Amino acid sequence: MVNHKNFNQLIKENERLDDLQREGLQIIQNPKWFCFGMDAVLLSAFANVKEDQRCLDLGCGNGIIPLLLYGRYKEAKSFEGLEIQKDVAQMARRSIEGNGLSDKIKIHDGNIKNAIEIFGSAKFDVITSNPPYLTENHGLQNTTNHKAIARHEIECNLDDLIYNATKLLKPGGHFFMVHRPFRLTEIIQTMSKYKLEPKRMRLIYPYVDKEANMVLIEGVRGGNTRLLVQPPLIVYKEENVYTKEVYEMYYN
Amino acid sequence: MVNHKNFNQLIKENERLDDLQREGLQIIQNPKWFCFGMDAVLLSAFANVKEDQRCLDLGCGNGIIPLLLYGRYKEAKSFEGLEIQKDVAQMARRSIEGNGLSDKIKIHDGNIKNAIEIFGSAKFDVITSNPPYLTENHGLQNTTNHKAIARHEIECNLDDLIYNATKLLKPGGHFFMVHRPFRLTEIIQTMSKYKLEPKRMRLIYPYVDKEANMVLIEGVRGGNTRLLVQPPLIVYKEENVYTKEVYEMYYN
Repeated sequence: MVNHKNFNQLIKENERLDDLQREGLQIIQNPKWFCFGMDAVLLSAFANVKEDQRCLDLGCGNGIIPLLLYGRYKEAKSFEGLEIQKDVAQMARRSIEGNGLSDKIKIHDGNIKNAIEIFGSAKFDVITSNPPYLTENHGLQNTTNHKAIARHEIECNLDDLIYNATKLLKPGGHFFMVHRPFRLTEIIQTMSKYKLEPKRMRLIYPYVDKEANMVLIEGVRGGNTRLLVQPPLIVYKEENVYTKEVYEMYYN
Repeated sequence: MVNHKNFNQLIKENERLDDLQREGLQIIQNPKWFCFGMDAVLLSAFANVKEDQRCLDLGCGNGIIPLLLYGRYKEAKSFEGLEIQKDVAQMARRSIEGNGLSDKIKIHDGNIKNAIEIFGSAKFDVITSNPPYLTENHGLQNTTNHKAIARHEIECNLDDLIYNATKLLKPGGHFFMVHRPFRLTEIIQTMSKYKLEPKRMRLIYPYVDKEANMVLIEGVRGGNTRLLVQPPLIVYKEENVYTKEVYEMYYN
């Protein structure tokens, strides 16, 4: 269990504190901006991190992925996050401070497009990302608010993300992403283009008889062309009742 | 129901007659060569054929796909098949004759690589294929026997297949293929390369908790980049017991 500081001193107006149900970790969220969803939980369960590995989350938002990964993989060397929205990055830092993890998790300000300048090439063993799912113009009204930047490719698109992730990874390093199946062609094409070879994929189906609404994909920098499609991940066994597997991702 | 001729006069040594459980259709198979499997049944259920459409199956083997599609879509204009193995194509013709369908289904001899010379460009509304799944050198001993040619890319590879399928299709025409998920990256990349845009995909899982072992994919010549991933297709609910959906594909 982590050693909490007094979160009360760290929370600002409009923010709330949520329990991550894992190792006593808590997170500060601002519901007016963006709150983490199931996709972050699924991504952290899909990723693999080994002892002494250096990990980076691209577009880390409120820091949910580094926090959840820390909860699962304390033997890693370090977790870092890169976030373009300074107020969101600052909120993530307060969560990390509140959990007493400032020596384990570092949040950097910046655009994914500039990530190689910020970090240098071939520095990470693991990169994760839960990027904006929608293209820039996909029904968008307001391009400056927090939700729009988290959901739409305003500051960085899929090509920017995958190009930079590949360069930031050491050869043989692993990339883990959650995205939407309707963009799977583009995802696979772009990963192949940069030699971030898709190695493992899992489709998420809300119910066993419904279309997939999320996809988890793992790429290896310089891997060979052979993909494993894992068992279907079914979220609900009936309305409002998680399947055992999803329940355990949240609470085990 | 089709009007059978006397199949007894059409069957040769080492061949057997199987009932397709659909409209009284029967098929001649040679177990020493290759017998159709579940993949053909799944592909025929996945494909869509509309009234008056001209359909071609690339690498049609014993003619199973044209026969099953005829059983589902009698309102189509015509079904054709292209097969490189002359003795197999000849066996397919005997099945078609036995079912009294020689005016509805035509089998052509030839290599998929030469399909554009054989048929001309932009001639078909629908193309189906259940191609060899394995690359040329994938553990192969004997490159001349019937099984090897059906299973390995000896005479034609995935790129040849997708290039030719695209050119044979009218703009907006539909391609339906069954393949193995481990080659999905290459499938999607190659379809994109030739603008045979992946539009619909379905993963086949032998059991709900097992990795996918087949994939069904539909492409549209010149379509836009947006993929629908349909509900998981689970084959068995328990050992030797098909799920309702798969049972109905065989028997309804």
